[in-house]
Amino acid sequence: MRFFSDNAAPVCPQVMEALVAANRLDTAYDGDQWSERLDGAFSDLFGTPVRALWVTTGTAANCLGLAAICPPHGSILCHELAHIEVDEAGAPGFFTHGAKLTLLTGHGAKLTPEIVNEACERIRDDVHQVQPSVLSITNATEYGLIYSAGEVAALGDLAKRRGLGFHLDGARFANAVAFAGADPADLTWRAGVDVMSFGFVKNGAMNAEALIFFDPAKAEVVPRLRKRAGHLLSKGRYLAAQILAMLEDDLWLVNARAANAAAATLAEAAGSERMVYPVEANELFVRMTSQEAASLRAQGYDFYDWGPGQIRLVTSWDQDMADVSRLAAAIETMLRLTARRSTRRSSFPSQSSP
Amino acid sequence: MRFFSDNAAPVCPQVMEALVAANRLDTAYDGDQWSERLDGAFSDLFGTPVRALWVTTGTAANCLGLAAICPPHGSILCHELAHIEVDEAGAPGFFTHGAKLTLLTGHGAKLTPEIVNEACERIRDDVHQVQPSVLSITNATEYGLIYSAGEVAALGDLAKRRGLGFHLDGARFANAVAFAGADPADLTWRAGVDVMSFGFVKNGAMNAEALIFFDPAKAEVVPRLRKRAGHLLSKGRYLAAQILAMLEDDLWLVNARAANAAAATLAEAAGSERMVYPVEANELFVRMTSQEAASLRAQGYDFYDWGPGQIRLVTSWDQDMADVSRLAAAIETMLRLTARRSTRRSSFPSQSSP
Amino acid sequence: MRFFSDNAAPVCPQVMEALVAANRLDTAYDGDQWSERLDGAFSDLFGTPVRALWVTTGTAANCLGLAAICPPHGSILCHELAHIEVDEAGAPGFFTHGAKLTLLTGHGAKLTPEIVNEACERIRDDVHQVQPSVLSITNATEYGLIYSAGEVAALGDLAKRRGLGFHLDGARFANAVAFAGADPADLTWRAGVDVMSFGFVKNGAMNAEALIFFDPAKAEVVPRLRKRAGHLLSKGRYLAAQILAMLEDDLWLVNARAANAAAATLAEAAGSERMVYPVEANELFVRMTSQEAASLRAQGYDFYDWGPGQIRLVTSWDQDMADVSRLAAAIETMLRLTARRSTRRSSFPSQSSP
Amino acid sequence: MRFFSDNAAPVCPQVMEALVAANRLDTAYDGDQWSERLDGAFSDLFGTPVRALWVTTGTAANCLGLAAICPPHGSILCHELAHIEVDEAGAPGFFTHGAKLTLLTGHGAKLTPEIVNEACERIRDDVHQVQPSVLSITNATEYGLIYSAGEVAALGDLAKRRGLGFHLDGARFANAVAFAGADPADLTWRAGVDVMSFGFVKNGAMNAEALIFFDPAKAEVVPRLRKRAGHLLSKGRYLAAQILAMLEDDLWLVNARAANAAAATLAEAAGSERMVYPVEANELFVRMTSQEAASLRAQGYDFYDWGPGQIRLVTSWDQDMADVSRLAAAIETMLRLTARRSTRRSSFPSQSSP
Repeated sequence: MRFFSDNAAPVCPQVMEALVAANRLDTAYDGDQWSERLDGAFSDLFGTPVRALWVTTGTAANCLGLAAICPPHGSILCHELAHIEVDEAGAPGFFTHGAKLTLLTGHGAKLTPEIVNEACERIRDDVHQVQPSVLSITNATEYGLIYSAGEVAALGDLAKRRGLGFHLDGARFANAVAFAGADPADLTWRAGVDVMSFGFVKNGAMNAEALIFFDPAKAEVVPRLRKRAGHLLSKGRYLAAQILAMLEDDLWLVNARAANAAAATLAEAAGSERMVYPVEANELFVRMTSQEAASLRAQGYDFYDWGPGQIRLVTSWDQDMADVSRLAAAIETMLRLTARRSTRRSSFPSQSSP
Repeated sequence: MRFFSDNAAPVCPQVMEALVAANRLDTAYDGDQWSERLDGAFSDLFGTPVRALWVTTGTAANCLGLAAICPPHGSILCHELAHIEVDEAGAPGFFTHGAKLTLLTGHGAKLTPEIVNEACERIRDDVHQVQPSVLSITNATEYGLIYSAGEVAALGDLAKRRGLGFHLDGARFANAVAFAGADPADLTWRAGVDVMSFGFVKNGAMNAEALIFFDPAKAEVVPRLRKRAGHLLSKGRYLAAQILAMLEDDLWLVNARAANAAAATLAEAAGSERMVYPVEANELFVRMTSQEAASLRAQGYDFYDWGPGQIRLVTSWDQDMADVSRLAAAIETMLRLTARRSTRRSSFPSQSSP
Repeated sequence: MRFFSDNAAPVCPQVMEALVAANRLDTAYDGDQWSERLDGAFSDLFGTPVRALWVTTGTAANCLGLAAICPPHGSILCHELAHIEVDEAGAPGFFTHGAKLTLLTGHGAKLTPEIVNEACERIRDDVHQVQPSVLSITNATEYGLIYSAGEVAALGDLAKRRGLGFHLDGARFANAVAFAGADPADLTWRAGVDVMSFGFVKNGAMNAEALIFFDPAKAEVVPRLRKRAGHLLSKGRYLAAQILAMLEDDLWLVNARAANAAAATLAEAAGSERMVYPVEANELFVRMTSQEAASLRAQGYDFYDWGPGQIRLVTSWDQDMADVSRLAAAIETMLRLTARRSTRRSSFPSQSSP
Repeated sequence: MRFFSDNAAPVCPQVMEALVAANRLDTAYDGDQWSERLDGAFSDLFGTPVRALWVTTGTAANCLGLAAICPPHGSILCHELAHIEVDEAGAPGFFTHGAKLTLLTGHGAKLTPEIVNEACERIRDDVHQVQPSVLSITNATEYGLIYSAGEVAALGDLAKRRGLGFHLDGARFANAVAFAGADPADLTWRAGVDVMSFGFVKNGAMNAEALIFFDPAKAEVVPRLRKRAGHLLSKGRYLAAQILAMLEDDLWLVNARAANAAAATLAEAAGSERMVYPVEANELFVRMTSQEAASLRAQGYDFYDWGPGQIRLVTSWDQDMADVSRLAAAIETMLRLTARRSTRRSSFPSQSSP
């Protein structure tokens, strides 16, 4: 039973149906009827006129977005655990022609205005130092935490005051909206976000992500950047159709809620003491000895180790709730066994073990 | 009836079936069972061990291939009408970090060893001039001409002698193989080609192209370049599955033969005098007055004007042969009418009109 | 006797004296008293407020200027013989992050509005083709021709109408001003030039060139680009002092006039029939058989062959006029001998020989 | 009296004389007799065949060196206070086309094999993470500490074992050699260094630095990179002549010893308790209240504040030893006053104050 990645999940049926339905003659690139509906669909969702472009990966969406608002000689302030820093193979440097990522720290991969402000203060405003151009956050964060609308707005205020562009990595934005119960507008443009990647692949699509500009003027150059990066697909309708299917009847939100619910079930079973971070989206980081992890694996559960004494569980839009219940039960059983042994040998893994 | 672009055609049934069949849980990125079969499938096709990677566009395939063999301070010799120069929005400059395209001329977008050699001779071998690093050709060319195995080999010999890498833009490689009736190996690695893009999208796939390295050592860095350019899809199996379906039972060749045959039918109807270039693949460049073009359009045929006094017709893998026959008949009728009027007013469009 | 390059000439005495005079303690980088006088000195010269920065090479001046006005996805229209294309080792591609040079043809490395306009017309305004962003000319051209104020203004008008930035490579701008007898303002900003490199090294300086922005707003980012390219010298006063010395009492113009006069003397001796181009600055391209060239070399004159049947002579600010007279006489003697032989054998090298 | 930067010092007499002596006709670029002696002069100094190129700034030297050994998709491990990270305006990103600086911590801007090794261990060897390509250190460090030959060799061993290139920022290499009393070879190639910048400007030159490759094969491409970055000066002899003058009779070492001695005198006066770091080269970081700093400034001493409660003093090759003695005395007086007041009010600035 798979709990290692939401990328491993299959494509959801509505998306497959949309692909079949789009399988007809139309104009190439993004001149087709599906692609032309994207701006409108996202403008409706966000309640403001936006410019929306399809791309095939979150890395492309993030980096095209960053390239549109960060000059080559600028820097992007982000968490040291941000996906753009850790898992995009240097793509931000490629797309921005060498702009720098200035790395910040913060609990659970979250930033606060204080952290960002302090980092800005440390940079001398002279020609020798790279000046900050953009603030980038991820919501849900790389550790599954959610920025509330208020938290985003506080960062947005600071960005505005400091003259920084504001980028949102929304690979799991759906999970963030599902948890926060907020209006997508309040988590984005009303909070000062200029540009975001909106993830669909982890949430049930095949290979379509959206890049959203809340100020369409900032997007003007992006179709050229997308083409220049080899990201203008000649049969773009098959990407647009996926995204439209995900937006239809809030499928993106339905799927995210399912994944979040599965994660919450597992978190409850494991108990807050075992959680490295509170579980707010669809990722769990659980303290676990290697023996415990091995025992779960022996029972057929697949997941990643995440540093010493820690595992990561990820739930998906299609997670079988029976599997989830079985894993929850297995974890509870494991906890009881450990507790019993611990009483005898006091080897209970403590907070500080990882 | 559509004759304006093979990109407009839908996806062929076998590819859609393959997508449905691949719609199951598997490892993310290119660790899945489909992606892992690519090297083998193309090695079989070419009769030599190759390294094959999926990407989503021909631009990405060409430019990742070029970046692997051309340093930022080098130049790529190509035809001035090459797709990489004319239609990729500067992507080669982006992927190679500023390498130069040195533009050559030649009939029908074709290069010869003489043309290439002369260009090399003109470049002073000093530090002030950009030195040639790569020779790039397109087969079928941008004007639908085919390089024979012998012609490619002659260029390959020169490239080797001059220490140039040899890149092949194979957006319509299937059409070239179909016309040449040659072993794919003879049109590529046996003729000295180092790296090629192998097009599938125009030929029936949805959004999967292949990037092939005939010397796997040269591909070593490419998975990193692909990821860094945002081209590593998280659900790669849906690309690999398309390509495998296209290779199965030589579907790629079957489709290309169908498109070529449709083009040949139209070429025969129009007659060689009207052809700007001989029709060898699935593109026709036809001399035609604007009145003639308007008349065909009025009959429901869609195509592009291609400069003054010229149109372009493109046939696709799925071209309805009844449509083709109808268009052929319409062209013949049009020719007769024009001939009649021309007898009266001697206004027949001559060779030199475009 | 040296007629092969104005780069080979030594530094003129006033510049050496200025270096000695500047050899005292001051602030590093460009905070010193000399550097701070540059904007004013050039604003005076051009009769308008400009922003002026020192750099050490013409390549750096050109390419920093181009990078300030051309985005990575844009293109620079220039002559196919332009220094930025032919002799800067791809530096424009490096500094602009891959922008393209779109090459135009024209007599004597000169462009006209017709040539530029036609090139613009050929570019489709879509996302697949690189759009022109900048027009770049060289005055004096690479073949020693001068654009008059009117010619520059005609190009400037077109650039404005087309929304193109306008760059001037002024490696030999002093020679152009000396020949044209025009106000420097009329050859630059009044004619629509946005940014120029102003050459001093070929004209008597040691290693200081100027980069001039006629719209200071466009220069705002350039100090950062200069530093990022490793071109912010820590003891900048030694560059600024050179330039100020060259501006003092119009030394730049005095030196250029001397070089031009030497060239004119040689051109008169050789006669217009032998000239590939009229001699307007300090370069002569002379039709000459290899025997003739060998004979001049045997008499102690150093110069470059410039393609078959052609030599290039370059005069410098410090050219000894006695040397010049000797060479002029040697050329005249040679011409007489050739004419005599030609009468007998009709082997006079014709216009069409090169 | 100036103690704020060694860049502010004038050029030393021998260098000015060399410039005057070089002021004659010669070949342009680096074909002249001075430039051609560089390889030999540095090969003699290091006791091994090296390739040496002049450039005008330390930033250019460092970044051309890094670009030669680090691919765009790689990363450079360096201290978070390294000049390449903090004070080169993102130049490494520009020259390497977006390679990443991976920042490490360590006392006094120094790295150890443990620190470097741990950083390598943290990087997953997959396609998503940027892999380390180069280790870069600065000797003397940005805080004036010296790596001994043994310390460099230990890092060199690790670099070799890990397959990393090894770069040395030698902006103050002369000061390091002067302090360490070591053979330059032992601080560089014998310790595994592949490429270094060798600083002369801070040490008495005008605008010439050297870029040294201990494996000439690695330098092969560098003349092209230098030209492409606009760093090939047309009158290169004036750079080469400076460097040769600095090497003559070990002037570089004589100058560095003078600067180090001045710093040592001041350090002794201030006492080790006040030093943030031991003084090993020509920079002192001294704990000082703002009142104390103000008092020194009132006496005519110029220097920078360096964060709260700290100042930086830099001594130069030409430092007047009378000034140094006066400042030393002023510091001692100040310390006595502070001590007296501190006895009364116990306000002595403690270790932890900065």
